[in-house]
Amino acid sequence: MLPLPDFDAVLAAAARIAPHAHATPVLTSRSLDELAGARVHLKAEHLQRVGAFKFRGACNAVWSLDEATAARGVVTHSSGNHGAALALAARTRGIPCHVVVPEGAVAAKLASIQRYGAVLHRCAPGIAAREATCAQVQADTGAELVHPYTDARVIAGQGTATLELLNATGALDALVVPVGGGGLASGTAIAAAALAPGCRIFLAEPAGAADAARSLAAGERRVDFVPDTICDGLRGTLGEPNFELLRRFDAQPIVVEDAETVAAMRLLWQVAKQVVEPSSAIALAAVLQRREIFAGLRVGIVLSGGNVDLDALPWSAA
Amino acid sequence: MLPLPDFDAVLAAAARIAPHAHATPVLTSRSLDELAGARVHLKAEHLQRVGAFKFRGACNAVWSLDEATAARGVVTHSSGNHGAALALAARTRGIPCHVVVPEGAVAAKLASIQRYGAVLHRCAPGIAAREATCAQVQADTGAELVHPYTDARVIAGQGTATLELLNATGALDALVVPVGGGGLASGTAIAAAALAPGCRIFLAEPAGAADAARSLAAGERRVDFVPDTICDGLRGTLGEPNFELLRRFDAQPIVVEDAETVAAMRLLWQVAKQVVEPSSAIALAAVLQRREIFAGLRVGIVLSGGNVDLDALPWSAA
Repeated sequence: MLPLPDFDAVLAAAARIAPHAHATPVLTSRSLDELAGARVHLKAEHLQRVGAFKFRGACNAVWSLDEATAARGVVTHSSGNHGAALALAARTRGIPCHVVVPEGAVAAKLASIQRYGAVLHRCAPGIAAREATCAQVQADTGAELVHPYTDARVIAGQGTATLELLNATGALDALVVPVGGGGLASGTAIAAAALAPGCRIFLAEPAGAADAARSLAAGERRVDFVPDTICDGLRGTLGEPNFELLRRFDAQPIVVEDAETVAAMRLLWQVAKQVVEPSSAIALAAVLQRREIFAGLRVGIVLSGGNVDLDALPWSAA
Repeated sequence: MLPLPDFDAVLAAAARIAPHAHATPVLTSRSLDELAGARVHLKAEHLQRVGAFKFRGACNAVWSLDEATAARGVVTHSSGNHGAALALAARTRGIPCHVVVPEGAVAAKLASIQRYGAVLHRCAPGIAAREATCAQVQADTGAELVHPYTDARVIAGQGTATLELLNATGALDALVVPVGGGGLASGTAIAAAALAPGCRIFLAEPAGAADAARSLAAGERRVDFVPDTICDGLRGTLGEPNFELLRRFDAQPIVVEDAETVAAMRLLWQVAKQVVEPSSAIALAAVLQRREIFAGLRVGIVLSGGNVDLDALPWSAA
């Protein structure tokens, strides 16, 4: 069992990443509030460096390493945003970075990883192939593995987004975050529990990869599924430490159909004028689906990322 | 000759619209700075109410009216954003609004005007037909005309965006704004001259509607042209008071091809994650076209609006 990070780890991460990460703005929109029937605060992590919250966790991990370890570099497997984030984080420290990417990953995200100077290693789709390739790179180079969501340093780093959000807004009634592997979700839960104890945590999860919902309902991880969702950042399996933390903090899943996610994404583009990816928009979709929960509340939504292929928008005729 | 507004009028407008308009954020992006070779500050007027700076001027005009005049309502002609802005401004005061729109206007903008409760009056394209229809509505209803860009109240209101921008950033070396009728441009020039006297004003203008460039070069207005540009907000003719003000403040035109504008728009979506319309993106295109002017400078760009038809993006195959 990996060690579980706590709120002190989130505070330490915030100090560690401050020279490198953006303190992103919190956006509001009267039109969106009217549509949602709630006071919505959008934490704009799509304006984070590399266009996703993932830079927080990656940056915390990279700058947590001792000199000797850091010199050998870092390695990860990632369908996209975490890979780009680790690549840039490594560059801020001047160390090598290796990223294992599955065939079929979003082209814009691969280009971004390479632009930040990482070495790409292709592998077959599926978690087993990824982990095997990753282990091989570790053996070959001595690089430190920075797992996209189970790594305690990563979880603590992701929690800093909520630290900033709650510092900006004051206490909120509810926080809604997307859940895939659970790095953002568990970091959010840690920070919210410390800063806004009455704040409920909701997990927006695609119907085509709803293992968190099933796992939390069953009281044990249910990881045997084939993801089928437009939310390419949420296809991963809920991690073990992430599951433990989400259970501990009583996070509530909301399962969302892709059609609802695409509609919410379009709304965020049209009304909030923000370019966000499906894996971000799902959090607003969850709020719109369950209006009875959120009516009149002060709701925080983490817009987790904005890396989209502008030539393949989900509402375009193919 | 209409009276020309001054900086006191801008300050009065700022106080008048404060209860109704958003103080929009100023956005920055390291990636954009690297691409531009300058320190770029984006004044996010696409996040203004109705999705455009136009709400500032319209709101100032509506709240400048005495009670008796206000009760008869307001009327304007507008290809889109000013119409929506005046409709919402009228609604904030609870008075009627009439908007004359030419055939062929952007569907999303017309829908927006109607959503804010204005009465639409269709007319043939061209400034003559618009003005005739507008005069008829005035005769029928007694409504007060609020011209989209020659109205002194409108010009002063548009200047409040630059007031906020310079208050947020401190002095800038250059300001780049789109120019169509010249309401935003002349308001910007008034505010900048008072707050940042050394700051140069640049006007980004589409090659297919470059009457401001021709007029300023000739020293007199050259208004005889047929606009042909993707920048639907910039097809109007530079107004007389706008021309006088831009001359007085020595504003420098930069003529931009539509292809440059579309490339800059895509960059703003991809890198800055902001949904802006072509008429906004043209200002960044001007900076990218004339790098030698802006190299190393602190540059303010007003992102004037974000009302785009998401089903007809300029980089999609038709």
